[in-house]
Amino acid sequence: MDQTDREKIEKIIRDRKKADEILLIKSKVYKSFLELEQKTFSDGNLKKRYKELIAIGISIVINCEPCLEWHIKEALRSGTSEEQVLESIEVGIEMGGGPATVSSRFALKVLEYYKQKSVR
Amino acid sequence: MDQTDREKIEKIIRDRKKADEILLIKSKVYKSFLELEQKTFSDGNLKKRYKELIAIGISIVINCEPCLEWHIKEALRSGTSEEQVLESIEVGIEMGGGPATVSSRFALKVLEYYKQKSVR
Amino acid sequence: MDQTDREKIEKIIRDRKKADEILLIKSKVYKSFLELEQKTFSDGNLKKRYKELIAIGISIVINCEPCLEWHIKEALRSGTSEEQVLESIEVGIEMGGGPATVSSRFALKVLEYYKQKSVR
Amino acid sequence: MDQTDREKIEKIIRDRKKADEILLIKSKVYKSFLELEQKTFSDGNLKKRYKELIAIGISIVINCEPCLEWHIKEALRSGTSEEQVLESIEVGIEMGGGPATVSSRFALKVLEYYKQKSVR
Amino acid sequence: MDQTDREKIEKIIRDRKKADEILLIKSKVYKSFLELEQKTFSDGNLKKRYKELIAIGISIVINCEPCLEWHIKEALRSGTSEEQVLESIEVGIEMGGGPATVSSRFALKVLEYYKQKSVR
Amino acid sequence: MDQTDREKIEKIIRDRKKADEILLIKSKVYKSFLELEQKTFSDGNLKKRYKELIAIGISIVINCEPCLEWHIKEALRSGTSEEQVLESIEVGIEMGGGPATVSSRFALKVLEYYKQKSVR
Repeated sequence: MDQTDREKIEKIIRDRKKADEILLIKSKVYKSFLELEQKTFSDGNLKKRYKELIAIGISIVINCEPCLEWHIKEALRSGTSEEQVLESIEVGIEMGGGPATVSSRFALKVLEYYKQKSVR
Repeated sequence: MDQTDREKIEKIIRDRKKADEILLIKSKVYKSFLELEQKTFSDGNLKKRYKELIAIGISIVINCEPCLEWHIKEALRSGTSEEQVLESIEVGIEMGGGPATVSSRFALKVLEYYKQKSVR
Repeated sequence: MDQTDREKIEKIIRDRKKADEILLIKSKVYKSFLELEQKTFSDGNLKKRYKELIAIGISIVINCEPCLEWHIKEALRSGTSEEQVLESIEVGIEMGGGPATVSSRFALKVLEYYKQKSVR
Repeated sequence: MDQTDREKIEKIIRDRKKADEILLIKSKVYKSFLELEQKTFSDGNLKKRYKELIAIGISIVINCEPCLEWHIKEALRSGTSEEQVLESIEVGIEMGGGPATVSSRFALKVLEYYKQKSVR
Repeated sequence: MDQTDREKIEKIIRDRKKADEILLIKSKVYKSFLELEQKTFSDGNLKKRYKELIAIGISIVINCEPCLEWHIKEALRSGTSEEQVLESIEVGIEMGGGPATVSSRFALKVLEYYKQKSVR
Repeated sequence: MDQTDREKIEKIIRDRKKADEILLIKSKVYKSFLELEQKTFSDGNLKKRYKELIAIGISIVINCEPCLEWHIKEALRSGTSEEQVLESIEVGIEMGGGPATVSSRFALKVLEYYKQKSVR
């Protein structure tokens, strides 16, 4: 795995943490958003892991790289296989066309990154 | 269920059929797209029904009403419960904010429409 | 004002109400979203009316018509002038180009609708 | 051609005209936008008709129906064939995936509408 | 403040300047756009600073980082407080969901950058 | 030409290649997409070079940098002049407003990169 890619992923992780700290103090709206997030991604009639796959598909279509980093990690952590993540990316490609194949390039790197870290 | 809403849904269905007929004759690209679509939504490491839920989440975020009509029907047909569709809409709301709550209004109508038709 | 336009606006209002009733019962995520919404649009360092203008500019760029109906009404209700709404639409046009001029057509209708209703 | 479809297209045309009248009086930004538009779509190193095809491809991807009505008419008026419009739609499908096939349904109706009117 | 972040912001500034020089010579459309921009963001019924806040909200939702750099600077320069910028970001989060929280990370860095530079 | 810019462009090229290799083995959907792509961009009633210009306009509006790198190269390779690429960017600006002027900055760099490489 490319050094620049690893650094990019790790910068995303640090940036999220730093912004979290600031926004949790300064923004009631952000705090409220985190509650909403937690309610969204907990087990329900649909297991958390399928919800994470939905979020991956969405992230592919809107090309949100930090979203991909987060939801792929969460998907793997909650028991999704690499093959299932790939198939959620495929749904993103069907719904997003060429630009979604671009997003999928970063998704593959995130998959590789967490495989090496052996998340789970 | 509102008469205008039912008519809107049924117009979406007719419009898809009509365009399909024209494009399948006139466009090799469209034909190729339908093959891609079929490959995407068939059972794999992920069951078709979970892929449909991913497509619903995406459709909520990008506000594609005819996509919602199609993928909600396909989700129900492949064994998804109404509650699971609702939870995929919730992921869409988390990823799309206020405008996604607007898309979810139409999704609810589609759910109601197919409940009355008792799809499955 | 065109009869079809008035009906469209009033359908948007009814649809929001209906979906609200269903989602408030069935979806914890939606309920959480409404809390977030309330926190967002209350007076702070920035008055509610300027926040509504921001939401109008966003709605123009993403072309969310029910968002326009809501936020224009709220802007007028909280003391914004018609001219100020128009200038928030202009920011939307600068940030959204040609398609934003399309969104602005619906915004003008909403302005006319609430002028006749004399909201405030 | 479906009566509702014809009416929808003609409403788009009327709505543009009406908004134009209002915005040309009330908005300097809008007036400035129309100048920008005229500069964009005049013959240059690229003929106007190819620029219209670019605008069609964009409109397919962002699903702007009034944009499609306008740019398809302008493309036909400046000498583009129906087949060329279709191929610009195909580029839109490649770049926009499933939701772009939805936009193409409306584009086909616009093509039919102007064929019957024998624009040119 | 992170060195990489500062460099990223300063690259954005240089890139804008460089492209401006080229496009002002080569593109009448671009020149026309700059006129439109100036008309949009001048004081009117709405002060420039509120217009900049609208542009910030839009930039959060569409995740345009160079737009954030520009409009946050302009907002601060025209007398907006840091707290007001934050509340325009909150409107962006309400209208953009999770991906908007990602955009807000960069917005925070820009705020910090211009605080250190003490713009105004 | 800036060293960072050149490296960014070359990273995009390497990333596409690497992802292609992985996805062609692992994803039938991706393979199917490449067939669709080939059908889309071959000469038809519209020459390939005009299709590439359409793709450039779309890429400007959705701000897809790797798409810009690819389609600008393909446009130049199939006989488009630099001036024509610029005019397709202008259509993107008309359809995308301010954020499209941001995308055009990267497009200019790609143009410069391939001029130095004397693609064709």
